[in-house]
Amino acid sequence: MERLTRRPVSEGLETVLGEPIPVLDHGFVRVVDYMGDDAAIVQAARVSYGAGTRTVQDDRGLIRYLMRHRHTTPFEMCVLKLHVKLPIFVARQWIRHRTASVNEISARYSILDREFYLPSVGDLALQSTTNRQGRGQPLADDDAKRVLGLLRSDAEQAYDHYETLLNDDGTGAPRDADAPQLARELARMNLNLAWYTQWYWRIDLHNLFHFLSLRADKHAQLEIRRYADVIGSLVEQWVPHAWEAFVDYRMKGGALSQGEWKVLREALGGRPVADALAASGLSAREKREFLDKIRGDDA
Amino acid sequence: MERLTRRPVSEGLETVLGEPIPVLDHGFVRVVDYMGDDAAIVQAARVSYGAGTRTVQDDRGLIRYLMRHRHTTPFEMCVLKLHVKLPIFVARQWIRHRTASVNEISARYSILDREFYLPSVGDLALQSTTNRQGRGQPLADDDAKRVLGLLRSDAEQAYDHYETLLNDDGTGAPRDADAPQLARELARMNLNLAWYTQWYWRIDLHNLFHFLSLRADKHAQLEIRRYADVIGSLVEQWVPHAWEAFVDYRMKGGALSQGEWKVLREALGGRPVADALAASGLSAREKREFLDKIRGDDA
Amino acid sequence: MERLTRRPVSEGLETVLGEPIPVLDHGFVRVVDYMGDDAAIVQAARVSYGAGTRTVQDDRGLIRYLMRHRHTTPFEMCVLKLHVKLPIFVARQWIRHRTASVNEISARYSILDREFYLPSVGDLALQSTTNRQGRGQPLADDDAKRVLGLLRSDAEQAYDHYETLLNDDGTGAPRDADAPQLARELARMNLNLAWYTQWYWRIDLHNLFHFLSLRADKHAQLEIRRYADVIGSLVEQWVPHAWEAFVDYRMKGGALSQGEWKVLREALGGRPVADALAASGLSAREKREFLDKIRGDDA
Amino acid sequence: MERLTRRPVSEGLETVLGEPIPVLDHGFVRVVDYMGDDAAIVQAARVSYGAGTRTVQDDRGLIRYLMRHRHTTPFEMCVLKLHVKLPIFVARQWIRHRTASVNEISARYSILDREFYLPSVGDLALQSTTNRQGRGQPLADDDAKRVLGLLRSDAEQAYDHYETLLNDDGTGAPRDADAPQLARELARMNLNLAWYTQWYWRIDLHNLFHFLSLRADKHAQLEIRRYADVIGSLVEQWVPHAWEAFVDYRMKGGALSQGEWKVLREALGGRPVADALAASGLSAREKREFLDKIRGDDA
Repeated sequence: MERLTRRPVSEGLETVLGEPIPVLDHGFVRVVDYMGDDAAIVQAARVSYGAGTRTVQDDRGLIRYLMRHRHTTPFEMCVLKLHVKLPIFVARQWIRHRTASVNEISARYSILDREFYLPSVGDLALQSTTNRQGRGQPLADDDAKRVLGLLRSDAEQAYDHYETLLNDDGTGAPRDADAPQLARELARMNLNLAWYTQWYWRIDLHNLFHFLSLRADKHAQLEIRRYADVIGSLVEQWVPHAWEAFVDYRMKGGALSQGEWKVLREALGGRPVADALAASGLSAREKREFLDKIRGDDA
Repeated sequence: MERLTRRPVSEGLETVLGEPIPVLDHGFVRVVDYMGDDAAIVQAARVSYGAGTRTVQDDRGLIRYLMRHRHTTPFEMCVLKLHVKLPIFVARQWIRHRTASVNEISARYSILDREFYLPSVGDLALQSTTNRQGRGQPLADDDAKRVLGLLRSDAEQAYDHYETLLNDDGTGAPRDADAPQLARELARMNLNLAWYTQWYWRIDLHNLFHFLSLRADKHAQLEIRRYADVIGSLVEQWVPHAWEAFVDYRMKGGALSQGEWKVLREALGGRPVADALAASGLSAREKREFLDKIRGDDA
Repeated sequence: MERLTRRPVSEGLETVLGEPIPVLDHGFVRVVDYMGDDAAIVQAARVSYGAGTRTVQDDRGLIRYLMRHRHTTPFEMCVLKLHVKLPIFVARQWIRHRTASVNEISARYSILDREFYLPSVGDLALQSTTNRQGRGQPLADDDAKRVLGLLRSDAEQAYDHYETLLNDDGTGAPRDADAPQLARELARMNLNLAWYTQWYWRIDLHNLFHFLSLRADKHAQLEIRRYADVIGSLVEQWVPHAWEAFVDYRMKGGALSQGEWKVLREALGGRPVADALAASGLSAREKREFLDKIRGDDA
Repeated sequence: MERLTRRPVSEGLETVLGEPIPVLDHGFVRVVDYMGDDAAIVQAARVSYGAGTRTVQDDRGLIRYLMRHRHTTPFEMCVLKLHVKLPIFVARQWIRHRTASVNEISARYSILDREFYLPSVGDLALQSTTNRQGRGQPLADDDAKRVLGLLRSDAEQAYDHYETLLNDDGTGAPRDADAPQLARELARMNLNLAWYTQWYWRIDLHNLFHFLSLRADKHAQLEIRRYADVIGSLVEQWVPHAWEAFVDYRMKGGALSQGEWKVLREALGGRPVADALAASGLSAREKREFLDKIRGDDA
């Protein structure tokens, strides 16, 4: 149902409002509500500058300026509220972002459904040999099938036993009149970290950008990155100028240390990078990361 | 301009959206944007309970339950954004509430207007003799006039000198070509705490209730209370069930300590309050505050 | 090793510093560091009052005053840092407290040990019939043994398969040279919510009291309450005056709504409680909760 | 008085603990307490990596790694508590940092002293012609004297009238028995933004670094920068490795946007910077800022 409002309206978000966008095998992201738009960022920034803004900067330019100089408070004036369904191991990474509001389904009250995450064959991968917290090569197909079989059978068995422990026919009455009904808050212990949970999540745009800069990053675990990518595309529809600035300055930008700047300035002055680097005092690891950056491998 | 939206709409706030509501002599509160309504609180709470909510509680009852048992996160799902113009001494109390977003006009950039707060004659009062941080009796009319005269003349002189220091004709050019233009960030030091500033302020409903419980309280300074009262009336229009619960449980409710409960239970059992209190071990001050509470003097 | 300091020292916490205090079957709480003491609360409060504190209040009285009137910032001046080992389902409740700092072991990097929580026979209980999120009567011994057997065998099997998936002999080399080594971040999905994790947790005293008021409460799940009780006893040793005030005003105190105060005042004036309640307009549930309070059943 | 502790001890901070370090004409920074040291950062980080940290990285290298990759939570494990005396216009900038705890002297309770900030002659400067919020050239000596004379006489007069309004002889009795004693919370309005206030301020190291990155920056107002510089030197004594990393990566490091990286890579590949920049699509302002960066003018 549509109603009239005098508030800022985002055409982009209105079209998807309330519709679950699928993520992973059973998860979703659903826009529940939003506040503000690109113009609201500019409006809040202009309060700070007041009559002091002599020249009329266009909105895009001002938003880029704010992003570049980390004037973050105007971005807090936009707010997004999502309904998300996600595996518990993803939820455990997600919840580390503290400047957000959350209402999660409680398995102390409610009986969870038989819904757990099973990676697709293509997403199963070996432990990385270069990055202790990452994935390396994909598994061979046969190996992948064995792994999935094992994950599935353990999850199914865990749920069967969860149901045995609860002993609830769905109306609160026991399935087996001779067996006990274990407290829900205890029975849930038998479910594993692949289980789906869901929550309402409200966050302002500044903190959402921080979330996305970590969770849409290539170092983030693939599963949470899938959620971050969907949210990123929503943000792009909602506040296109802010999104563009965020991508340019944060997602695809990058920082250099004092020592790296010195090497860089020497190199721009004509000194071979290798020479400048050798004389720089940077550690082996810092040198390697610097070379990755100037090659664009870190983009 | 009105546009269509699928988001929750508050009829009450739509009618005042964008309109400055006067507070004090030059201040105002203006609703810029809002997110959510009473139903949004209920919706978030129901995610937590999930299928576990067997009986259909009506919204009002659930909101009262949440407020009574301090289940605060569903109230964070509603958000209000205000534009406020207020004296600096009020702003300094207000900003102590950290869980909000603020964009304030900067007197480093901008030249402030000749606008300072002068209390009305009726609001001028003696230092309280019983409460170190409060006001007592109103001033006699003659005294009030003398006080206002003094406050006004100092403020006018401060602004005259502020203009002398800035030496800016409004276009950036000097008024007096032979005098310097002192940096704005220095000149502003000459303005006093009665000066008006303004900001955009965004806060969620849970934290707004906390703000109101402190700032609409009788112990708050009269001037900030005037703002809190206006905001309270906006909240009442926006989320009437939540407001009613807040008033019942927080604003007009009150807490008792372990020792006070003991006295109370004895009194309900028939023991004279004075006897129960004498045997209670409460300090003189605690006894006095208890008697105020049961008389309703603290309501 | 002991060293000299000019900072406040808590004799109580120094004696337990660094020693794990057991909780549940494999968990612990260990004090890593602390800042401040009762005197630090008073010192911060006295900055606020400055020369305005005419009479010398003793520390205990001032701390009780601060607690009673919810002047919370002085309590933020004390800080506690703990190392905690806890089951994941407990960690998921704990992490909802956002105003704290956390560093948790990462199962993306590290291989977790074979350590999961198994309730003691006495802690296994039926789903409560009156409280949807609570435990009721303990299980019969035979039933308890069956439940534990099932929880244990599922957990053991999950860990066996976790090891199979990791295929790591502890040095990074495969146990089975023909099998793949699944990425750790994927393999961990097979572990359930009873698994132990650990973290460093830093929180200030005001927010710690909020944590304890929710997690040492009778409505909290038994397992997290065990942790809260241990932390409470540490706080008692650390800041005895603040602890006493917290217990009196928060843990064993209680709030009344506007309507409940009205009933109470009538009852103290001689009207039978039942009559006053009948005329009060409170809902059936509110009436029941009120009677519990005045009987002390809610203490 | 010194006492024994088993907590980490910072030799550097112990020597200055409790001693006011002068800032501006009447202000100071005084270390009241601290928690943790460089090793505490490492210790918390190692919990995250757990048994996964195969190689023993030395502490300095790990701290640099954490800073470089914005792994911020381990830095939250160190805490600093300061007592600061500062002009109100500085306090108003300072308080915008929300993730800290504050207890400020209240002029509702207390009578403030006759202490206001007067810049030194050398610190008085013209409004910048290139930066709307900055200072340009210093004032000529004669102009500076006139400005100071005006600031001083207005401040002295404001305080004289503040005393008249309070009409308090220091014991609470009136100086003039025939005049009223205006409430303190009203009289204070007559004091200006140069007045000194004081507070206790507690913050963790991560958030302190954020404060310093903004307030020790060349764009910060000179007066708050003086405080930030003193605090920076305290941090250097307290956590020397973390300080070094902060300076290298944050204070003297700098970020580049996607477009700037592109220009840079082309320049390193031999294309003249001017050509690469001309083809880049960056705005005039972005080009100017880029050239400043590679020249090191922004360091």
